[in-house]
Amino acid sequence: MDNFFSIRTVTWEGRTVRMIDQTALPARLTYVRYTRPEQVADAIRTMVVRGAPAIGVAAAMGLALAAVRSTATRLPNLMQEMETSAALLRNTRPTAVNLFWGIDRVMRKAASAPTVREAKEAIFTEVKAMEEEDIEVNRRLGKQGADLIGNGDTVLTQCNAGALATVGYGTALGVVRAAVEQGKLVKVLVPETRPALQGARLTAFELVRDGIACTLISDTAVGHTMSQGRVDSVIVGADRITKDGYVFNKIGTYQMAVLAQRHGVPFFPAAPRSTFDLDRTHDMVTIEERGANELVEIRGKRIAPRGIPVSNPAFDMTPPELVTAIITDVGVVKPPFGDNIARLIA
Amino acid sequence: MDNFFSIRTVTWEGRTVRMIDQTALPARLTYVRYTRPEQVADAIRTMVVRGAPAIGVAAAMGLALAAVRSTATRLPNLMQEMETSAALLRNTRPTAVNLFWGIDRVMRKAASAPTVREAKEAIFTEVKAMEEEDIEVNRRLGKQGADLIGNGDTVLTQCNAGALATVGYGTALGVVRAAVEQGKLVKVLVPETRPALQGARLTAFELVRDGIACTLISDTAVGHTMSQGRVDSVIVGADRITKDGYVFNKIGTYQMAVLAQRHGVPFFPAAPRSTFDLDRTHDMVTIEERGANELVEIRGKRIAPRGIPVSNPAFDMTPPELVTAIITDVGVVKPPFGDNIARLIA
Repeated sequence: MDNFFSIRTVTWEGRTVRMIDQTALPARLTYVRYTRPEQVADAIRTMVVRGAPAIGVAAAMGLALAAVRSTATRLPNLMQEMETSAALLRNTRPTAVNLFWGIDRVMRKAASAPTVREAKEAIFTEVKAMEEEDIEVNRRLGKQGADLIGNGDTVLTQCNAGALATVGYGTALGVVRAAVEQGKLVKVLVPETRPALQGARLTAFELVRDGIACTLISDTAVGHTMSQGRVDSVIVGADRITKDGYVFNKIGTYQMAVLAQRHGVPFFPAAPRSTFDLDRTHDMVTIEERGANELVEIRGKRIAPRGIPVSNPAFDMTPPELVTAIITDVGVVKPPFGDNIARLIA
Repeated sequence: MDNFFSIRTVTWEGRTVRMIDQTALPARLTYVRYTRPEQVADAIRTMVVRGAPAIGVAAAMGLALAAVRSTATRLPNLMQEMETSAALLRNTRPTAVNLFWGIDRVMRKAASAPTVREAKEAIFTEVKAMEEEDIEVNRRLGKQGADLIGNGDTVLTQCNAGALATVGYGTALGVVRAAVEQGKLVKVLVPETRPALQGARLTAFELVRDGIACTLISDTAVGHTMSQGRVDSVIVGADRITKDGYVFNKIGTYQMAVLAQRHGVPFFPAAPRSTFDLDRTHDMVTIEERGANELVEIRGKRIAPRGIPVSNPAFDMTPPELVTAIITDVGVVKPPFGDNIARLIA
C-alpha cells in the first residue's frame, strides 16, 4: 500500500547502492550512496543498514558493485574479484543467514553466465529483482499473518522488523500493516531494544510516520506489561530459523517468548523463506558478540564507569517449544516445526 | 568493612542533610547539602537519592529539617508544621514503603515529647540513629544472606540495591560484600536497568570502586545469559514486600524471576524489616508511573521520535511462587511467605 512508508531502505540505482543511514534515525532521515563493496561491508558492520532481509539485499548489491568496478576481461578473473568481495561481505555479521543467501544468489548468477559482459548484466538484473521481490515477499507474508491479528489487538514486537529491516513494508510490522489494511485497529507495543535501540529509534519512527498507534516501553517493562493482560500477541522478526525450528533473533526475543508462554500470549516469528537455514541445526549457529561501546555509551554520552567489563551478545535463540507458529510468505508454519519447515520451505 | 565503599549516601551533619548526587554518577562523585524539606522532596522525586532504604532515611531527615527551621513555641504548632512537610515528602514517590516508614518514625518520636525543645532534640537524635542503624541492619542482612552464595558463584542483580540505595553497604550488594568478606570469589552480572540506568551507572560504579568482579549486560540479555548456565543466583533489592509475600521492586525484576524459575536459578529478594508492609496485601499497592522523558531521552540526547506515546512504570510485582526465599536482617524467610513473614517480621 503506497500509503505505508513508501521509502526504500536499500535501492539499486544507477549502478550504485543508495540506502537510508539508519544510525541517524530518528533525528534525521538521510541517505548514503555507495560505489564500492567495502563501503557496503562497513555499512552492514556499523548498522547503517540492519535487519536480516535488508542485509541480504544490501550484501548482494555490495557484491554487484564489485562487478561494476571490475576491469576483468575474462570470466574467471571477474569471478575471482567477486569472490574477494564476497568474502569481505560474509565477514561482516555472522548471525543473519540472509547475508549469505544474498551473496550466494549473486555468485550463482554470475557463475552461470557465458561472458563477462553477460555476467555483469545478469548480476545487475538479479540485485534489482531481489529488491523488488523483497517488497512482494513481505506483502505476501503480511497477508499470511494478518488473520492472526484481531480487531483492537495490541501486538508486542521487538527490535525493528519493519520497512527499515527490509527493502520496504517489513516482516513483523508488515503483518501489522496488512492487518491495518484489512481495516483492523491495531496497537503496537515497542520495547526500546537496548543496546542499539532499534525499537525506540526505528520501529517508533516508522509507526509514527505511518500513523499506526504505538507505545514505547523499556525492555524491563515487557513482563510487567504482559502480566497486566495488555498484550494479545507477540510478533517479531528473525535473523535465522534453523531446520529444527530454533529462532535466532535480536537479543531480548528469547525472554519475551518465555514471558509470552507464562501469560498464554501467542508468540509468532515472521520471516521470509530466505531467513530459513535448511542446512543447519541450532547448535551450528554463531551468535554475534558486539563491542562494549554499545553499552557504555549512548549516542556518544558515557553512561557506565570506565573499566567495567561488558558482555554484548547481539542475538539470542528461542527454542521451538516457545513458538506458537511461524509466519512466512508461503504460509503459516505450525508445530512440529522440523517436519513442517521441511515441507513448506524446502 | 571499611574497605568497602565507606562513603555515606545520606548523612545528617550539622543539622543539614548531605547526600551524594546520584544523577551525576558515574561521571562525577559530588555532594549536595539541603536545609529545607522541599529540597529533600525534590531530591527524592528527581532521584538525586533513590533506593528504598536511602529514601526512608532521607525523608526522615527532610522532616527533621522542618524541625530545624520551625520557630514554633508550642508543640501543636510544631506538629502542624511537621505534618505539612510530612505530607509533601509522602507525595514524592508512592511505591517504596520505607518512605512512609521513615516519616512515621520521626512523627511518632516528635509526638511523644513533652516540649518543643525536647521534640526537636528527639527528632535530631532519631534521624542520626536511623542513619547508623541502616548500616548495621545491612551488615546483619549481608551476613544472613552470605551463606546462600557459594565460592565462585555468579550473582545476577537488578537496578542498584547497593551502598548507594542505602546509607551504606547495601542490601542485595550487602549480601555480595558479606560473601566476599568471607573470602569467597563472587562475580556480579549487572543489567543496565533502563530507563534510569541504575545498574550501568550506580551498581557498576560501586562494584568497580570496591574491586568486586562484575560484568555489564543489557536488560535484553538477561534470559540469554541464564539460558547459557552463567547465573548461579539472582539477588535483588525490594521497594515493598506485602504481608502476602509479593515483592515490589524495580521494573524488570518480575521478568528476571520468571526466567530464574525456568532455568532453575534461585531468586532471592534482600530487604530490611522496614521494607515489609504488614498492613497491606499486593492489590493495595500503587506502582509509580514516571515521566516519558526517561525513555525518549538518555543523558539529554533524544533517542525516540517526537510524538511517541510512552508507558513508564517504575516498578513491578513478583508473586511469591517465583521467590525462593527472602533475605532480611533478622533471618532468611522461606515459603509459605504469608505465615513466615508474620512470624519473623511482625
